Amino acid sequence: MTDAIKTIDVAVFGAGRIGKIHAANLARQPGVRLKYVVDVNREAAAALAAEHGAQVADIDGAMGDATIGATVICSSTDTHADLIVKSAAQKKHVFCEKPVDLTLERARVCADAVQRAGVVCMIGFQRRFDPTFSALKARIDAGEIGTPEMLVVTSRDPGAPPVEYIRHSGGIFKDMLIHDFDIFRWILDDEADTLHATGSCLSDPTIADAGDIDSTAVTIRTKGGRLCQINTARRAAYGYDQRFEVLGSTGMLQAGNVRPTEVTAYSKTEVSTDVPEAFFLERYRAAYALEIAHFFDAVTRGKPVRTTVADGLKALELADAATRSWREGRVVKLGEAS
Amino acid sequence: MTDAIKTIDVAVFGAGRIGKIHAANLARQPGVRLKYVVDVNREAAAALAAEHGAQVADIDGAMGDATIGATVICSSTDTHADLIVKSAAQKKHVFCEKPVDLTLERARVCADAVQRAGVVCMIGFQRRFDPTFSALKARIDAGEIGTPEMLVVTSRDPGAPPVEYIRHSGGIFKDMLIHDFDIFRWILDDEADTLHATGSCLSDPTIADAGDIDSTAVTIRTKGGRLCQINTARRAAYGYDQRFEVLGSTGMLQAGNVRPTEVTAYSKTEVSTDVPEAFFLERYRAAYALEIAHFFDAVTRGKPVRTTVADGLKALELADAATRSWREGRVVKLGEAS
Amino acid sequence: MTDAIKTIDVAVFGAGRIGKIHAANLARQPGVRLKYVVDVNREAAAALAAEHGAQVADIDGAMGDATIGATVICSSTDTHADLIVKSAAQKKHVFCEKPVDLTLERARVCADAVQRAGVVCMIGFQRRFDPTFSALKARIDAGEIGTPEMLVVTSRDPGAPPVEYIRHSGGIFKDMLIHDFDIFRWILDDEADTLHATGSCLSDPTIADAGDIDSTAVTIRTKGGRLCQINTARRAAYGYDQRFEVLGSTGMLQAGNVRPTEVTAYSKTEVSTDVPEAFFLERYRAAYALEIAHFFDAVTRGKPVRTTVADGLKALELADAATRSWREGRVVKLGEAS
Amino acid sequence: MTDAIKTIDVAVFGAGRIGKIHAANLARQPGVRLKYVVDVNREAAAALAAEHGAQVADIDGAMGDATIGATVICSSTDTHADLIVKSAAQKKHVFCEKPVDLTLERARVCADAVQRAGVVCMIGFQRRFDPTFSALKARIDAGEIGTPEMLVVTSRDPGAPPVEYIRHSGGIFKDMLIHDFDIFRWILDDEADTLHATGSCLSDPTIADAGDIDSTAVTIRTKGGRLCQINTARRAAYGYDQRFEVLGSTGMLQAGNVRPTEVTAYSKTEVSTDVPEAFFLERYRAAYALEIAHFFDAVTRGKPVRTTVADGLKALELADAATRSWREGRVVKLGEAS
Repeated sequence: MTDAIKTIDVAVFGAGRIGKIHAANLARQPGVRLKYVVDVNREAAAALAAEHGAQVADIDGAMGDATIGATVICSSTDTHADLIVKSAAQKKHVFCEKPVDLTLERARVCADAVQRAGVVCMIGFQRRFDPTFSALKARIDAGEIGTPEMLVVTSRDPGAPPVEYIRHSGGIFKDMLIHDFDIFRWILDDEADTLHATGSCLSDPTIADAGDIDSTAVTIRTKGGRLCQINTARRAAYGYDQRFEVLGSTGMLQAGNVRPTEVTAYSKTEVSTDVPEAFFLERYRAAYALEIAHFFDAVTRGKPVRTTVADGLKALELADAATRSWREGRVVKLGEAS
Repeated sequence: MTDAIKTIDVAVFGAGRIGKIHAANLARQPGVRLKYVVDVNREAAAALAAEHGAQVADIDGAMGDATIGATVICSSTDTHADLIVKSAAQKKHVFCEKPVDLTLERARVCADAVQRAGVVCMIGFQRRFDPTFSALKARIDAGEIGTPEMLVVTSRDPGAPPVEYIRHSGGIFKDMLIHDFDIFRWILDDEADTLHATGSCLSDPTIADAGDIDSTAVTIRTKGGRLCQINTARRAAYGYDQRFEVLGSTGMLQAGNVRPTEVTAYSKTEVSTDVPEAFFLERYRAAYALEIAHFFDAVTRGKPVRTTVADGLKALELADAATRSWREGRVVKLGEAS
Repeated sequence: MTDAIKTIDVAVFGAGRIGKIHAANLARQPGVRLKYVVDVNREAAAALAAEHGAQVADIDGAMGDATIGATVICSSTDTHADLIVKSAAQKKHVFCEKPVDLTLERARVCADAVQRAGVVCMIGFQRRFDPTFSALKARIDAGEIGTPEMLVVTSRDPGAPPVEYIRHSGGIFKDMLIHDFDIFRWILDDEADTLHATGSCLSDPTIADAGDIDSTAVTIRTKGGRLCQINTARRAAYGYDQRFEVLGSTGMLQAGNVRPTEVTAYSKTEVSTDVPEAFFLERYRAAYALEIAHFFDAVTRGKPVRTTVADGLKALELADAATRSWREGRVVKLGEAS
Repeated sequence: MTDAIKTIDVAVFGAGRIGKIHAANLARQPGVRLKYVVDVNREAAAALAAEHGAQVADIDGAMGDATIGATVICSSTDTHADLIVKSAAQKKHVFCEKPVDLTLERARVCADAVQRAGVVCMIGFQRRFDPTFSALKARIDAGEIGTPEMLVVTSRDPGAPPVEYIRHSGGIFKDMLIHDFDIFRWILDDEADTLHATGSCLSDPTIADAGDIDSTAVTIRTKGGRLCQINTARRAAYGYDQRFEVLGSTGMLQAGNVRPTEVTAYSKTEVSTDVPEAFFLERYRAAYALEIAHFFDAVTRGKPVRTTVADGLKALELADAATRSWREGRVVKLGEAS
């Protein structure tokens, strides 16, 4: 490999949980250098910068540095749009955590900005990079189950976040199901025609007080007549539950949970195995590494990314439709005047 | 056991696939004697009667024999209501295959008739007697998963019946999902408040020509705010797929498929096990035996049956609502004027 | 089916646990009639006879009745040889529980007697009729894993029988591993060249006092160089464990345990399923029914039986060799002067 | 963490498959620096050194550099003893791949040398660091299955190495089962009293020509009367098979294979999952990382290592005994004059 890979300098925005993951992963990419960490919490920024030999900067400092080739945006959702637009203006490639924004209007502004700037903009739908999920998708594409016709997604968190978080999250459909809506589009390779969503607040009444729900049941019928059902809960007592299955015309494929170990125990009363990996950081560890590698590979080789800002918009449209369906207790036709 | 069990003479109506199953199972009950087999197809009736030392009769002959204590109705759906009413009039206990009838009106007439007559009337929702399903239900009732909050039902047939059958079946919701609606009520122990159903015809266009669909996605929200999703297909290439799972406040329970053998094979490319039992006769063999035993036990000991005619009515109401929801593309409120 | 099957009258010897199973199963065979039940415990004999409309008889009465076409021997091991010889003398076909006898000498006398008499003699190695085991064997025979090369057998009881039983059992190798030795011969389709056995008494010191062990590890090398390992324990806290696996030149096949239900439970700490079926009566319920059907099918149609008295002798030779290997702490060559 | 961890400079001997793994893993340890790579193949050494910013050296150069605090020995087995002794002489801590040596005499010399020098010497039994295996061991130690009584180890490679390798491997017991012998001692926490080994050459006659076998069956009885069976094959068509199970007085624990993905596929004929991870580099990826971390943690904090040179000697004694048992066709008593 005599490929002379040019080095890219990167600024990471957000030094929280997911920022740390991305920083560590990008530090492992050959030809990628973490130059700046930006966070309103200077202490967190400093700690993360120190760990990777980077510097702390503020937004303008990082954006204004012409040597920065790409930004990685892991800050709070309300800052995404602004940072994407600024990155585009500076001709920097962008990796941004989901969702693009909580409103379709601002998300569209982002999409326009990156398109006009001609920069890469990848949205962090890391699930598409999970080894189990991507193997399953590849097997569908290879025709193993004929035409995919029905998709059933089970997506449950081990516990609800603080209600303060929920209050600013945009609601469960934008905050949590955004991933499942992306899975739906990716797996069935089709677009929604109608959508029905309902839900309840079953685990914690303060979530209802905040105007949100913690359990949902969504059904999508696609333009091609395929069916998708998504069931979601903020609290699964047994941990993080991330499964889906696809019924095709000639077979079925299931993506199961991942277990920390392969120990099976036989007691007087039961045969047991581990509960699934605890939460997304554990469950999607490999996916996070692979998506960052994919992003920099795309940037350095000029290849398309797998999860574009257009995908981010489409998922957001579905989340919007679901919110409306739930609130109004009716079936929503995608594309209807909202 | 000094219990002097008095012998019950029984007439079976319908000598088809399911009639044969019930005849063989009831012949094994101590104190139960198969006296008559009734079928418009005299040859089929004669063969089944011969196998169990019974006689062929016509409807009036069997109904008019005062020694007949119970009837087992396995004839075509359009004959159920008439036979139930006649049995009730003759004070004979009734076991009737699902559905009670295709119309709620006639089903209500049946319910009234058996109530006035004071006879036992059990509907053949055999799934409640499946060892796996009933063990799961017992564990819910024992509090193992706290409060049940979400139910996901997967119910797929290995292949669609002849379109001629479908044409007279009352539609997929009354013919196929009637079982799943009963599972829903039994497992969540709650009643539907709203229901949404959608579907498609994906496997065979002649089903669409007959005005029906072969794939459905149903969501029910109960009065207590619980959620249920049911996905159904007439054709699963890998066989008969009968699973459900219940998320509770403190855990989750799944009912899985049953395999013919426990052989696991390791080849160069995969580790494989058997596909599930082929179809309902195999999958629910034990359930059929247990439900008939339950019926005669209830009759001879004066105990209540687990699946009453009222359960039959409720399942039919849900099937009706689902049909309306699908046809009209909207959410249906149970109890709304139809 | 115009086959005029002639009726066979049968005498069952032994009205204990396994006698009841065989009596119930043979009563279900078309053309087979249970005429006599023989047991030193007259009360047990009477109860079993009553259940199936049979009569109580003593040995001479049953053996002297020329209408009896077959005997089913389920009495204590020390009576087997005598009853086999008597049956042969009376030209009655014989189904006999394992082992043929505790001594090779007497077992050979039995083999000679049935051969001279020209009657069918089937030994109750019911495991060969287990649906999982026989499906696995059929797949080996169909070439699915190429040449079978290694066999690993796990065979564990849920608990040791009373030491009084053990004292007269002939030792663990004849009483318990006799089944595993038969499995070995059947699956690898080869004969032992050398055998090594060792063991310990780990669960209950009174078993050691009775001169026996409760845990064994046996290795057999066949004439064809194939390898077999058997591990056995009288006490598995989690129940009855009956598995084996066969490594072939192109793949591997495993026979797993059977579970009462397919419920899977997710709790905070584990994902669990049922422990295996409790003990042999539950685990091999289908096998017992199938072996009796096979016996009478063979008898009435003049076909060979799958588990002959020669198989009984071979298993006994291995049990003898294992006992010697364990006692003398050395490798035993099969066929060496003992 | 104000722990001022002093930096350790390291020399790696051997730039082959396993040398690369260890080099990459140690490069990730905080406070550890790869300084030298030594290999008779200078090109391989240079490539590996370049990848990690290290230098190429020869044995004397590396050993003579007083700044080198630890050596990591991954060169061919015949060089291990010499490099261990040299490391000890230079007061360098040693991590050495298994086996210590092919002869007990030279292995004992190594053990003496490191003991006299007071340096840490860890042997690369990486399986003890596998997440599944170590979780199982911890659960035994926590008393979950009472007293462990029987161990069954299945250890199969996907294919035999070149016969040239086998010729210099010391035979299957020293080359392949050395790991399983270590597992045995670790899991049962007991020492062998007697050992029986047999085997065959079933996959490739050139292995027999080289005086070796490719399939083995080993039984060990411990001083405490516990039993262990190990079955091994050089060629499992379905891949790398690494399982064991431990029967205890109150339960059983199994360590299963690890799969690349959790996809389950349903076709017309079977339900299938992935075959296990392909070979040891994939299967034990996490274990390799954890053992190197453990080594440097032990070295820098002065803590004992989990797999000592004494463990290496004990495993070698068992391999020696197994070789003798197989060759002489007899049971070997450990500690007998050899």
